Amino acid sequence: MVMKTRAWTLSARPERLPLRDHFALHEFADPPLDEGAVRVRNLWLTVGPAMRVRMSAETRGYLPPYDLGMPMGGWAIGEVVASNAATLSQGDLVIHQYGLRDFGQGPASAFEKLPRPGPAPEHYLNALGSTGYTAYVGLVEIGKPQPGETLFVSGGAGAVGSTAIQIGKALGLRVIGSAGGAAKGRLLRELGADAAIDYKSSGSLVDKLAAAAPEGIDIYIDNVGGAHLDAALALARPHARFALSGMISSYSQERASDTMHNLNRIVTQRIRVQGYLPFTDHLDGLGHFRDQMWSWIEAGTFTPLQTVRDGLDCVPQAIEDLFAGGFTGKPLIRL
Amino acid sequence: MVMKTRAWTLSARPERLPLRDHFALHEFADPPLDEGAVRVRNLWLTVGPAMRVRMSAETRGYLPPYDLGMPMGGWAIGEVVASNAATLSQGDLVIHQYGLRDFGQGPASAFEKLPRPGPAPEHYLNALGSTGYTAYVGLVEIGKPQPGETLFVSGGAGAVGSTAIQIGKALGLRVIGSAGGAAKGRLLRELGADAAIDYKSSGSLVDKLAAAAPEGIDIYIDNVGGAHLDAALALARPHARFALSGMISSYSQERASDTMHNLNRIVTQRIRVQGYLPFTDHLDGLGHFRDQMWSWIEAGTFTPLQTVRDGLDCVPQAIEDLFAGGFTGKPLIRL
Repeated sequence: MVMKTRAWTLSARPERLPLRDHFALHEFADPPLDEGAVRVRNLWLTVGPAMRVRMSAETRGYLPPYDLGMPMGGWAIGEVVASNAATLSQGDLVIHQYGLRDFGQGPASAFEKLPRPGPAPEHYLNALGSTGYTAYVGLVEIGKPQPGETLFVSGGAGAVGSTAIQIGKALGLRVIGSAGGAAKGRLLRELGADAAIDYKSSGSLVDKLAAAAPEGIDIYIDNVGGAHLDAALALARPHARFALSGMISSYSQERASDTMHNLNRIVTQRIRVQGYLPFTDHLDGLGHFRDQMWSWIEAGTFTPLQTVRDGLDCVPQAIEDLFAGGFTGKPLIRL
Repeated sequence: MVMKTRAWTLSARPERLPLRDHFALHEFADPPLDEGAVRVRNLWLTVGPAMRVRMSAETRGYLPPYDLGMPMGGWAIGEVVASNAATLSQGDLVIHQYGLRDFGQGPASAFEKLPRPGPAPEHYLNALGSTGYTAYVGLVEIGKPQPGETLFVSGGAGAVGSTAIQIGKALGLRVIGSAGGAAKGRLLRELGADAAIDYKSSGSLVDKLAAAAPEGIDIYIDNVGGAHLDAALALARPHARFALSGMISSYSQERASDTMHNLNRIVTQRIRVQGYLPFTDHLDGLGHFRDQMWSWIEAGTFTPLQTVRDGLDCVPQAIEDLFAGGFTGKPLIRL
């Protein structure tokens, strides 16, 4: 019996923002299951900004470019439907990176078994997964917050940003978030932010941040870069810690180019700027983090923010919308 | 008896590079010596790039702007000629910041007593002073070097850079220095650098650094910023450490502006960028550092690089030449 998988592929490389027409759904015939391999039916998919980096022919990232016409992949939650591996059985719930398709197949080591019963599986694509852990590592391990300090979060209505805002409040920080538009600003307040900056309104980002944080900022959680990073430098207090996990502002540029006016503040304020990829260097702490985050969720201290859409067909529109700012929280696709 | 001091003052704020005409020598009448104060005859003066920041009406630095027509100050070595303080006596050798003048006068707490007999006093303005300590803190405390790693040093023929190159070799690193022109390149080799980059020659700095460090760099010691910082980001290996103690490239700009193409590498390579001011945050380690550095000098492992000129009158020309790249090593002025 030949097994088929329907998978989204990149059909054309976007020059700037990715649009739904850059993607095509193809059906692939899967080989028989290897010894040690499993086959998984996907239940939840997601899309994320790092995908944009891989759409270019030469990535500036840490993952290789997508091949045109081949499955793109991404984080997904699935249920094992066939297993040739001792470690996984039919019916097991798993998280893996064979996403943006209906079935995933590969060596068992590429699939992490999730507890069942346990948290709702989609949490592992958001608060308990890469999104939550990115916010947590940046804020707790790199930011080393002290109660009463001021935290600034770019992309505050996004997946990582909305998580960082809530963790910041749980840790007793004063929190300022940035997002585009008044509606997102209200959302940031609902998440607990003490102040919200609308980066799309008229005026300079430096002035807006100075108004929201007249005494400056101590910690900056950034996955945007560009003008946001420059404004955060302008307002950094001595010994500020900057945790950088992405630079969305540059992902859709042919060649990244940022005009920075405040880099000298790194010296004068003795700022620490630390780039990080939580799933590359910080895997040891993932279990502890999940326990901590789940206890926050159960206590009502933390509410995962997500936008759910349905069906494999909605993937290209979800990618287009992600880069147009059309989501709040983590985009989740339910199959 | 009225005591007089001849001191260099800022007579006009430079728009870009400081020229000797921006400075004027004035004679000031000093008040009688306060209780607890000392008066010092200066023996050695120096000039440094950070002075440029203070020449602007609004500094972007950590020290206030110079007042027009008032003594500018700076690091100096002197000998106590009168003391109303218990802690210092006539004939004591001291280091202090009443520089760019022939006499300094102030509270004893502003003067650090130096050992006599001991190292030649001018060493305390170079290898044993702020210059040496800036290189040492950046390379050892922030860089945390491992033998065999690759170090890149901007401004390699300058005071801090020439020091960092030699410390890097003493610690078993592969060292690449950057400087302007073939003669400075030869100097870098004489200091022990494994490769020298001429940033003034044709071609891109990224290409030159890639040729000198085909496998990338692990540590970057920077007091230049701008294109040098951007090139270092382009060649950074995973977990590279960047120690930033200055940004000469921006000091003479009306408004700092750096076009950066490789900031995203902070994320993908998980780079740590740390700004620092050794005399603001790291004073505890100064004694240990001086012992270590003096043992290197006595063993011949380290040779302080300096250019000596004579007389108070040469100060303005020394400042002009410093920003035109006219010095190798630390500029010292002997009175």
